[in-house]
Amino acid sequence: MISGHVFIATSLDGYIARNDGAIEWLLERDDPSEDHGYDAFIETIDAIIMGRGTFDAVRDIKPWFYTRPVLVLSATLADQRPPVELEDKVRFSGKSPEQAMAMLEAEGCRRAYVDGGQLIQSFLRLGLIDDMTITQVPVLLGNGRPLFGPTPSDISLTHEATQAFSSGLVQSRYRVVR
Amino acid sequence: MISGHVFIATSLDGYIARNDGAIEWLLERDDPSEDHGYDAFIETIDAIIMGRGTFDAVRDIKPWFYTRPVLVLSATLADQRPPVELEDKVRFSGKSPEQAMAMLEAEGCRRAYVDGGQLIQSFLRLGLIDDMTITQVPVLLGNGRPLFGPTPSDISLTHEATQAFSSGLVQSRYRVVR
Repeated sequence: MISGHVFIATSLDGYIARNDGAIEWLLERDDPSEDHGYDAFIETIDAIIMGRGTFDAVRDIKPWFYTRPVLVLSATLADQRPPVELEDKVRFSGKSPEQAMAMLEAEGCRRAYVDGGQLIQSFLRLGLIDDMTITQVPVLLGNGRPLFGPTPSDISLTHEATQAFSSGLVQSRYRVVR
Repeated sequence: MISGHVFIATSLDGYIARNDGAIEWLLERDDPSEDHGYDAFIETIDAIIMGRGTFDAVRDIKPWFYTRPVLVLSATLADQRPPVELEDKVRFSGKSPEQAMAMLEAEGCRRAYVDGGQLIQSFLRLGLIDDMTITQVPVLLGNGRPLFGPTPSDISLTHEATQAFSSGLVQSRYRVVR
């Protein structure tokens, strides 16, 4: 059975990026000497699902950052082919979240990393997220792109662990209650 | 010099109450046997400042909950007298946040507890908050009354401490960087 996982940083007021996508507020407060667990997390992951917004933000970063196969869910991109240099790393698909998870499962994928605010919100609303690791950055941005959005009803969580870092980042892991 | 302090609980998606003011989602997840530090916090406080929304929510709770003098900032209530049973505990004022802090300071108050989402947002924007203790409750509400709101610029914070409780509540204290 495939499961969905979130690993993301937000400002204390819940934004994952400024309105223009900028994340310099995060990079400035990151301490590269601290291990925030991304590498250990990604080791457990078989595939990465992201939306077009996230793909557009990372597509030109060289070298390509992701070490797992990436599935980009986008009605706009579905009919296009990925850039040549990414064609063995990235697929575009117009599938729904449920269809995408079913496809990955049929391919043998057991754990999918769901990235990007809009996609995380969709997957949460559909009950496709199993756990979330959220790293809170000690700053209030006042506005930007929120991690969370409206939900049809409460989504109850089980707190699993919290770790505070010297940099001021606070990372908590929650399991989504089904 | 007077200082402003916040001590409040939010859902993981940043709401302090549902749109109708309900906080049953918080009470259900609270474990009364855990000490979340409110009593120790309030011991350090000389006066409490709240807005009309918060006062309306607590005015009929018997017995009166607050153990420190309460100042209610409200243009609407400023010309009225507090309820008789609260007249030695509550004052109404139409002062601005700055004026209210100056008045309390002149009266010898050194630490003011600022309560309620709208008032906390105003005080933050005006640079009148020195530190915040925020307790995050493991639930996503999807909508409601947010703790934080727009700010004219970034508000940088210094993380001071984080404590996770068995109930799943995670409490962090931040100092506001001036």
